[in-house]
Amino acid sequence: MVSTRNPLNIGASARAMANFGFARLRVVQPYDVAFREARSAVGAAPLLQAAEEFATTADAVADCRLVIGTTSLGHRELQHPLRRLEYGARLIARSLAQAPVALLFGSEKFGLSNEDLSHCHWLMRIPTVDAGLSMNLGQAVALCLYELARDPKAAEAKPERIRRAGAAENEQITGMLIDVLERSGYINPVTAASSQEKIRRLVRRWDLAARDAPVLMGMLRQVLWRLSQGD
Amino acid sequence: MVSTRNPLNIGASARAMANFGFARLRVVQPYDVAFREARSAVGAAPLLQAAEEFATTADAVADCRLVIGTTSLGHRELQHPLRRLEYGARLIARSLAQAPVALLFGSEKFGLSNEDLSHCHWLMRIPTVDAGLSMNLGQAVALCLYELARDPKAAEAKPERIRRAGAAENEQITGMLIDVLERSGYINPVTAASSQEKIRRLVRRWDLAARDAPVLMGMLRQVLWRLSQGD
Repeated sequence: MVSTRNPLNIGASARAMANFGFARLRVVQPYDVAFREARSAVGAAPLLQAAEEFATTADAVADCRLVIGTTSLGHRELQHPLRRLEYGARLIARSLAQAPVALLFGSEKFGLSNEDLSHCHWLMRIPTVDAGLSMNLGQAVALCLYELARDPKAAEAKPERIRRAGAAENEQITGMLIDVLERSGYINPVTAASSQEKIRRLVRRWDLAARDAPVLMGMLRQVLWRLSQGD
Repeated sequence: MVSTRNPLNIGASARAMANFGFARLRVVQPYDVAFREARSAVGAAPLLQAAEEFATTADAVADCRLVIGTTSLGHRELQHPLRRLEYGARLIARSLAQAPVALLFGSEKFGLSNEDLSHCHWLMRIPTVDAGLSMNLGQAVALCLYELARDPKAAEAKPERIRRAGAAENEQITGMLIDVLERSGYINPVTAASSQEKIRRLVRRWDLAARDAPVLMGMLRQVLWRLSQGD
């Protein structure tokens, strides 16, 4: 993070690093020398404490094989290949397996300077809808780290499901419900068979969660008991 | 946003909405009644001004066909299907084409209450590495909106490239460089042919950007002129 003005943004970035499994935070000439006390780091205070401080961008990236600058595009004439976050993150992830990669973020107001950019191999931009409105720095850091850690397979995966009630439980509930409706006079004895089929299909459409089955049975049992009191 | 404590988080969320093309912000019982003045909204102040305020979550989601709660998982016993952001965002995007969808974010400290959760069809979580460390609220909102707007094809796309120099320019530069090196005495007349080949290959390996070609020609021209002065 180069020339960051608001220490809250450094703290929020440290927190996002902890959220997505990144450990080495480097700051170049932060505006606020007391940035390590930023409360926005929340659970990432140790990571913020361990941040390395540098006088120049050149020093900060000296041991990195690949240096990527982030930009909100703006008006500056670009002298670098510019890649969208979704694609750039894949390239970075591949390089990270071999050698350290630096991801540079400029100041809130001016972004990276031309001097900072001269250290970059290429630039990356977050695909916002309006290039005129830049992103909040802490949010931009979080997005880049999220995309770096993102698992493309997870988008295809089946959802994590809660267990559904089994056929036996559904049939038990169906029987109790039919019983209740017969005793209540809802079911006409002449059409009882087709009514029972309708009720059976209704219970199946509920697709009850396993945990809800005993709750529903308890309700039906109580109603049945109440209905039998009138006999 | 339900029971948000820090108005800066509402402002930052409004800014992220503007970044990713979302327009309708609804707040339920914000802690700070002056949340509309949050400076963190930056360019999204009009969106923040237009935010709708509600007394209850039920009122806020009344016209939505699908209601999704966000959670950092935590310790609460889940009574809903829980989906990862990558997958959940796809489902939401599909529903959005048909009817309004509500995405609920709880308070910074406690998340969504059980009462809030009872309005949700399912829950979504951001895949952080440590479930014990929650995300900053403004960053979490930005990530969800980014993923909703994310174009999966962009990850596969070819990078946006800067134009490279053409063969003619490369050959012109090669000729000038050979000229410079001959006049400087770098090229031994006996091995001149193989030297020229080496230089030609070297220039091709540079893979010059189109914009850098005239710059380099200007430099070589100047050196040639200086070398010819000694004749």
